[in-house]
Amino acid sequence: MEKALPQLSVLDDDHFHDECGVIGVFGHPEAANLAYLGLYALQHRGQESAGIIAADDGKLRSHRGMGRVADIFGSKELSELPGTQAIGHVRYSTAGGSVLQNTQPVFINYRYGSFAVGHNGNLVNALELRHRLEQDGAIFHTDMDTEVIVHLLARVPGKDAGERLGAALQQVSGAYSLVCLTETRLIGVRDPMGFRPLVLGRLIDSGGFVLASETCALDLMGAEFVRDVAPGEMIIISASGIESRQALPETARRMCIFEYLYFARPDSVLDGIHVYSARKRIGHVLARLHPRDADIVVPVPDSGVAAAMGYAEASGIPFELGLIRNHYVGRTFIQPAQRGRDFGVRVKLNAQPEILKGKRVVLVDDSIVRGTTSAKIVHLVRAAGAREIHFLSSSPPTTGPCYYGIDTPDRAQLIAAQHSIDEICKMIGADSLGYLTVDALYEAVGKRELGFCDACFSGDYPIPVPTPGKGHQLHLLKELR
Amino acid sequence: MEKALPQLSVLDDDHFHDECGVIGVFGHPEAANLAYLGLYALQHRGQESAGIIAADDGKLRSHRGMGRVADIFGSKELSELPGTQAIGHVRYSTAGGSVLQNTQPVFINYRYGSFAVGHNGNLVNALELRHRLEQDGAIFHTDMDTEVIVHLLARVPGKDAGERLGAALQQVSGAYSLVCLTETRLIGVRDPMGFRPLVLGRLIDSGGFVLASETCALDLMGAEFVRDVAPGEMIIISASGIESRQALPETARRMCIFEYLYFARPDSVLDGIHVYSARKRIGHVLARLHPRDADIVVPVPDSGVAAAMGYAEASGIPFELGLIRNHYVGRTFIQPAQRGRDFGVRVKLNAQPEILKGKRVVLVDDSIVRGTTSAKIVHLVRAAGAREIHFLSSSPPTTGPCYYGIDTPDRAQLIAAQHSIDEICKMIGADSLGYLTVDALYEAVGKRELGFCDACFSGDYPIPVPTPGKGHQLHLLKELR
Amino acid sequence: MEKALPQLSVLDDDHFHDECGVIGVFGHPEAANLAYLGLYALQHRGQESAGIIAADDGKLRSHRGMGRVADIFGSKELSELPGTQAIGHVRYSTAGGSVLQNTQPVFINYRYGSFAVGHNGNLVNALELRHRLEQDGAIFHTDMDTEVIVHLLARVPGKDAGERLGAALQQVSGAYSLVCLTETRLIGVRDPMGFRPLVLGRLIDSGGFVLASETCALDLMGAEFVRDVAPGEMIIISASGIESRQALPETARRMCIFEYLYFARPDSVLDGIHVYSARKRIGHVLARLHPRDADIVVPVPDSGVAAAMGYAEASGIPFELGLIRNHYVGRTFIQPAQRGRDFGVRVKLNAQPEILKGKRVVLVDDSIVRGTTSAKIVHLVRAAGAREIHFLSSSPPTTGPCYYGIDTPDRAQLIAAQHSIDEICKMIGADSLGYLTVDALYEAVGKRELGFCDACFSGDYPIPVPTPGKGHQLHLLKELR
Amino acid sequence: MEKALPQLSVLDDDHFHDECGVIGVFGHPEAANLAYLGLYALQHRGQESAGIIAADDGKLRSHRGMGRVADIFGSKELSELPGTQAIGHVRYSTAGGSVLQNTQPVFINYRYGSFAVGHNGNLVNALELRHRLEQDGAIFHTDMDTEVIVHLLARVPGKDAGERLGAALQQVSGAYSLVCLTETRLIGVRDPMGFRPLVLGRLIDSGGFVLASETCALDLMGAEFVRDVAPGEMIIISASGIESRQALPETARRMCIFEYLYFARPDSVLDGIHVYSARKRIGHVLARLHPRDADIVVPVPDSGVAAAMGYAEASGIPFELGLIRNHYVGRTFIQPAQRGRDFGVRVKLNAQPEILKGKRVVLVDDSIVRGTTSAKIVHLVRAAGAREIHFLSSSPPTTGPCYYGIDTPDRAQLIAAQHSIDEICKMIGADSLGYLTVDALYEAVGKRELGFCDACFSGDYPIPVPTPGKGHQLHLLKELR
Repeated sequence: MEKALPQLSVLDDDHFHDECGVIGVFGHPEAANLAYLGLYALQHRGQESAGIIAADDGKLRSHRGMGRVADIFGSKELSELPGTQAIGHVRYSTAGGSVLQNTQPVFINYRYGSFAVGHNGNLVNALELRHRLEQDGAIFHTDMDTEVIVHLLARVPGKDAGERLGAALQQVSGAYSLVCLTETRLIGVRDPMGFRPLVLGRLIDSGGFVLASETCALDLMGAEFVRDVAPGEMIIISASGIESRQALPETARRMCIFEYLYFARPDSVLDGIHVYSARKRIGHVLARLHPRDADIVVPVPDSGVAAAMGYAEASGIPFELGLIRNHYVGRTFIQPAQRGRDFGVRVKLNAQPEILKGKRVVLVDDSIVRGTTSAKIVHLVRAAGAREIHFLSSSPPTTGPCYYGIDTPDRAQLIAAQHSIDEICKMIGADSLGYLTVDALYEAVGKRELGFCDACFSGDYPIPVPTPGKGHQLHLLKELR
Repeated sequence: MEKALPQLSVLDDDHFHDECGVIGVFGHPEAANLAYLGLYALQHRGQESAGIIAADDGKLRSHRGMGRVADIFGSKELSELPGTQAIGHVRYSTAGGSVLQNTQPVFINYRYGSFAVGHNGNLVNALELRHRLEQDGAIFHTDMDTEVIVHLLARVPGKDAGERLGAALQQVSGAYSLVCLTETRLIGVRDPMGFRPLVLGRLIDSGGFVLASETCALDLMGAEFVRDVAPGEMIIISASGIESRQALPETARRMCIFEYLYFARPDSVLDGIHVYSARKRIGHVLARLHPRDADIVVPVPDSGVAAAMGYAEASGIPFELGLIRNHYVGRTFIQPAQRGRDFGVRVKLNAQPEILKGKRVVLVDDSIVRGTTSAKIVHLVRAAGAREIHFLSSSPPTTGPCYYGIDTPDRAQLIAAQHSIDEICKMIGADSLGYLTVDALYEAVGKRELGFCDACFSGDYPIPVPTPGKGHQLHLLKELR
Repeated sequence: MEKALPQLSVLDDDHFHDECGVIGVFGHPEAANLAYLGLYALQHRGQESAGIIAADDGKLRSHRGMGRVADIFGSKELSELPGTQAIGHVRYSTAGGSVLQNTQPVFINYRYGSFAVGHNGNLVNALELRHRLEQDGAIFHTDMDTEVIVHLLARVPGKDAGERLGAALQQVSGAYSLVCLTETRLIGVRDPMGFRPLVLGRLIDSGGFVLASETCALDLMGAEFVRDVAPGEMIIISASGIESRQALPETARRMCIFEYLYFARPDSVLDGIHVYSARKRIGHVLARLHPRDADIVVPVPDSGVAAAMGYAEASGIPFELGLIRNHYVGRTFIQPAQRGRDFGVRVKLNAQPEILKGKRVVLVDDSIVRGTTSAKIVHLVRAAGAREIHFLSSSPPTTGPCYYGIDTPDRAQLIAAQHSIDEICKMIGADSLGYLTVDALYEAVGKRELGFCDACFSGDYPIPVPTPGKGHQLHLLKELR
Repeated sequence: MEKALPQLSVLDDDHFHDECGVIGVFGHPEAANLAYLGLYALQHRGQESAGIIAADDGKLRSHRGMGRVADIFGSKELSELPGTQAIGHVRYSTAGGSVLQNTQPVFINYRYGSFAVGHNGNLVNALELRHRLEQDGAIFHTDMDTEVIVHLLARVPGKDAGERLGAALQQVSGAYSLVCLTETRLIGVRDPMGFRPLVLGRLIDSGGFVLASETCALDLMGAEFVRDVAPGEMIIISASGIESRQALPETARRMCIFEYLYFARPDSVLDGIHVYSARKRIGHVLARLHPRDADIVVPVPDSGVAAAMGYAEASGIPFELGLIRNHYVGRTFIQPAQRGRDFGVRVKLNAQPEILKGKRVVLVDDSIVRGTTSAKIVHLVRAAGAREIHFLSSSPPTTGPCYYGIDTPDRAQLIAAQHSIDEICKMIGADSLGYLTVDALYEAVGKRELGFCDACFSGDYPIPVPTPGKGHQLHLLKELR
């Protein structure tokens, strides 16, 4: 008989995780192929599932699957998605709710025809809306909060899809950047606070338009950046051109600051701020706040690289790749039965004694969430012979969970919510520990006046959440019923 | 009907390619799981197929598949490979011969029982041997040169598997690092010139032994480095312990120098030389040979990173990640029909205008093979606004193909075999171009006295090859017949 | 490149086709396994897809797939369907709408919990109801009329599932035998006219109950026959026992007469009439109505066997298997490009010249629908040397399509709706042709007073259909929108 | 965790089983498609696996798979087998050795090019030859005796494939009807005793030739019967026409008599004898040998039908289908944990009480092997109310296993080898039991002078077998080593 070997999720890497990336294309003979390119470039925003829906001659066609974009879409799948307009979606989610049924874009046929939507974000009042809709006879087929939007859409009045979508969104509260597709229109919307990014680009060859979560997708799609979609703005693209509506009343803008720290790709520019440069500036500020008498600056690759380079630049301490990352890891990993505590980290990172032995090391990582991985990394670096380890986090202490589209542990598991910096330093086994401050973060990122959400650091939640804890999130509905 | 969309192989990235990595484990209750870990760490040596064969209670069991280790092996597959000894293999090969039948390890039942072998290298006289064996009634089932070895093994005398294997290998000529498994023994052999690496390690917990192509596999397997297997040496590990035989007469050692430049993982130590450090020293030497008046040093990631860091260190010019690599690329890529010439590169690399605009750039890559990719990268960097581009290759000009286990284009396609450096500079569109020299390469790598094969740079082939060109390689047999 | 070979559907065999079979089990520790056995026995009622849903500890679990029961369910699938109650469904449908999405049982989560339903029949007002529900905000996920029932169910009041289901069914019109499953109940309902059969049985070992489309399923499930479910009756089985309600007002009973001619398995007893015996009696009557001076009576196997035996018995003419049937045919068949007109028949039937040569043959088939297959069979028998062919149909001329759950061609394609018997005889190439009459059919089947639907022969449709033709059937909705 | 449910092999139905069927096609533009048709018609000779190999322009292409012909071959698979010549094979084998590796036709590349062979039969000296070949360095890849033939072929001299094949076959002993394919030739051979059938046909449209195990395949392929291949004859078909050689010395002809009783399809004509007619004559003889005072004659379908019809005809007792067979059974069946002894039979057969109740029944089956199934059937008929059951076997008592290509149990399991007829009658629970005698069998089949093998009834084995029992059969090699 088969023994159950311990299977280790390599994705469970003690980071906050972005939950989605979205793409829209209008006005290109190979719209689905461009959407595929865009998803390829946004793969870092979700590796669990992906989907593309294309509209051709009044008919929408869909292909969705579990896994990565490159595994789900081949020549055959793309050729079965003809048409000049398409939307795409990549999704991350915790292991539990990871089923094909929950892939996006969501696609329905209803009284007005076909409608598809890809969603990046999280609705705060989804559970409440779902209960109300079910009382009214609605039948739900997934556990996704996004399905609430389409049920609302099927019940509101309005003279066109844009108007109906606007009416439906009046009832929802939370974070969302949406790309929507009907037989004839591509629609993009960003919630009134603009929690999640969404950019508009123009295709260089065809003159068509694209929507994308991040600018890094534009280059590969052959598009040039036009502008960020504004909070509360709805952009409707059809054969008659592009139209912008203020679909939802403007409130204070609250773009997620963590996008700059970890989620976004370094080569993206979000709301005018270049991510890689912001991360390097964070390194400069870290060097000022936490000067260390050290021999080398070593990043935890890949997310700590830019900040470590910035630290090295500002401090004059040499930058070295003391940890080598294996880029060939899959989603899960089978570990031997009797393996020790830092195995999960060793799969991805190997410490180089030739570089680390006898050295005083400044170790730069992007954040400390539960602290478990940080402790394993410190142990790894120590075992490779480092004499001193000065751990620096390029984000402030993470003291609160996110309710606006980021997968985070409960507060009880956030080490910085439960312990002092000194305690954390001891728990992870470092010789010293330094965090960025919220003010220093804004100094490095810049443009604080634009308005950002920093609730996970400050506890200042721009939209109140029904109850503390994670229980209100819709993907937990299954357990609740 | 399905249209055939252009499918782009992302692997076709204009590099020389290592063809294989091998692993052996003896004396551990979860031998197959350890072999899996070892292959995970050696995945950079071959991503086309992988296999593990384990021996338990006198019976060998095999699992092989196309793709990456993480996709081929799960909890179920590993639990069906019980036993305390195992061998594993990862394989790269050109698209044509890429079929399940050609995966390794090769596994036979013959008159002496079961025998399995994993092979890194290439036999120079395989075709000649195959013809002779076929005349003698042998029936071949694959296109792999490795199958010649097992047919010889089934025909030679000898009192044990080691002796028979030694007798079989007397007849072959070429490059091979082998791991072999019988019901009771693990055998490792390195050819008399030691073209391909092979190291011996000891498991920390069980006291068992492991064999691996590179030391980077040892850490993850929980093994410590014992020593490199010597050229011509056969190591036989059984219940009665470990035995070393000089299976083949020692000739001049000819370890492949290109392992240090590109193939090996930076954290490996091969024959006492740490790869990452060697690559940084190559950067130092490049800075001395090719000083440039520039603003930034930018690597072509990932293989150019260490040399670029070395160049920056030695020159004092700031190191910047002007090109961002997407690590989520699969094996192939579907490109739109009308896309331009640098699309294949854009899938993996994105140039950052924020970093490159108006700058004089030293661009460091590991090698220039056909020149096509280099031209695309230069174009990308130029389009992002770079004012000057000084291209530096951390290897000498590659003027000859390899016949000893590396997949290389024909001489006619090697740009440096056909053109002067000035011509190449113009062809790739750089403002200046600099190569490392062979002497400078040895200066940087060190220990030249050990003896290396540098035939691809120097034309000095340690084993004569039957005819010029690639036609003698066994994986072309299919076309010939 | 792949050439598209002509692919022949073996199922397109010019018969009327039953569309479904249903099973319900309550009160057995291996309920899903019993449902599987029941579906096995009902496989003749639908080979396109199958599904089982089981309830365990308040949770419903589902497995559905395309193909036959034996291919869809293995040890693994059944073990993942624990619980003491379950329903199952087999489905036939025309090639077009054959997709996984349209498999049954239909399964929803709604405000009252979980509900699953398997449906045999066809709703006459489904399209109208669907439009009304969509106007009211309902989102449909399939093309099946059955989905209308669950949307109604989610909107009607009622104090328990039975009451709500009854209220929902008040609004539908047409043919249905339903098996339904909630967390705690198994419900069976038959429409007020009782078009489709449904029987109740009792498990011999556990004392639990089963529902099945035909009695032939009872034996294999280990159940004994209790009684037929009455038209309009709802049977609710729960932990507190079995309850019968007259859920819908009784109207004139209209059991489908064609079940006795072709659909049902010969060993089933429907509403007290043994199918095999009825078919033999039809043969007796045929012999009286159409005496022929012939040498042998040959059935078109398998459906013509019993009537041919009856004819031989009554006439004294020897019964011979002049046509041999290949039982190993799959769902489709790849025929060579240049093949002739009776190829589709030859795949299943082979004529024996050794039996037929020089003989005057009475050839008995169950019906003549389009006439195309009959012509091919006559040609086959003639080519094998038969001197005379007297074709007898054991059903009356089929002159109208069915709107109550049977897949039939349009009237325009029904040969007997367009041509006289003499014309048909000529068209199929027979020497003489005889049909059963409707009166003679009732004489043979017996119990005419019970009330049957014979609309396909008589044009007397018990429920008016919105428009003539097939367009009102819900599985054509896709084309309409 | 998954519980292991009892999985019942439906194939294990207590019959002797034919092990293979073969097809060859030469001179038709769609040769693979014709081979597919032929295999479809021969599916009764093996349902475990199937394969086709086609030759086109000097290249052989192969497709093989587990399961039935209709599941393995679709439009895509056939279109990838171009060429005007092809061979095909269907295979039955006991569950143990049922793996893809063991499918046929066997296909090799060797010094003379490509060679493929499909084999119906069993070599008596395969194990001995295999040991000798392994000593000589041969490496075997399967457990099939057929592989011995290709290893011999690779080692013998000869000026063409036919001559070499003849030389190889000189060394083997046993039963074989072979179809072989080279780049340019189709070869058919029947062993010197002609144990297994093989017929030659001519394609009506193209004028090409076909080979087939039985004539029933010819009709579907569009071929007319030419003649049976003679024992020891080799037929070589090439572009230059058809050639017949006496490849092996003629010895006494020993065609398997059991083909007429059970293996062959009723519509086949083997060596001039029509199978269906022979079976009916067996029924006539049975009626003379075993007259019974009974009400009805009931066959065990499908194999007992013709003999039962013959019995009814000769005795005047009415023929009735008291047992109904479910033709939708798959290869395996999942039975509930607590089911009783005749479950395996009930899956396929259902007894009709309406026919059997109170009746004196003559029950006709083709044979009694272990007796277990017969007992279950008797129990089933008794439980349906039969008053008396007179069991008649249309074959003589099976007292010895077959070593010439039929899968049979060991002698110890053959009920007739261990017990008297009276004992058997009691063991199966019948009221009386009658067997055919060997002489009566020849009387019914006719042409005894042709020479038949009846070893399983008479113990007269035409080729001596190394040791008693089944141990010498090659598919048991795995256990032996």
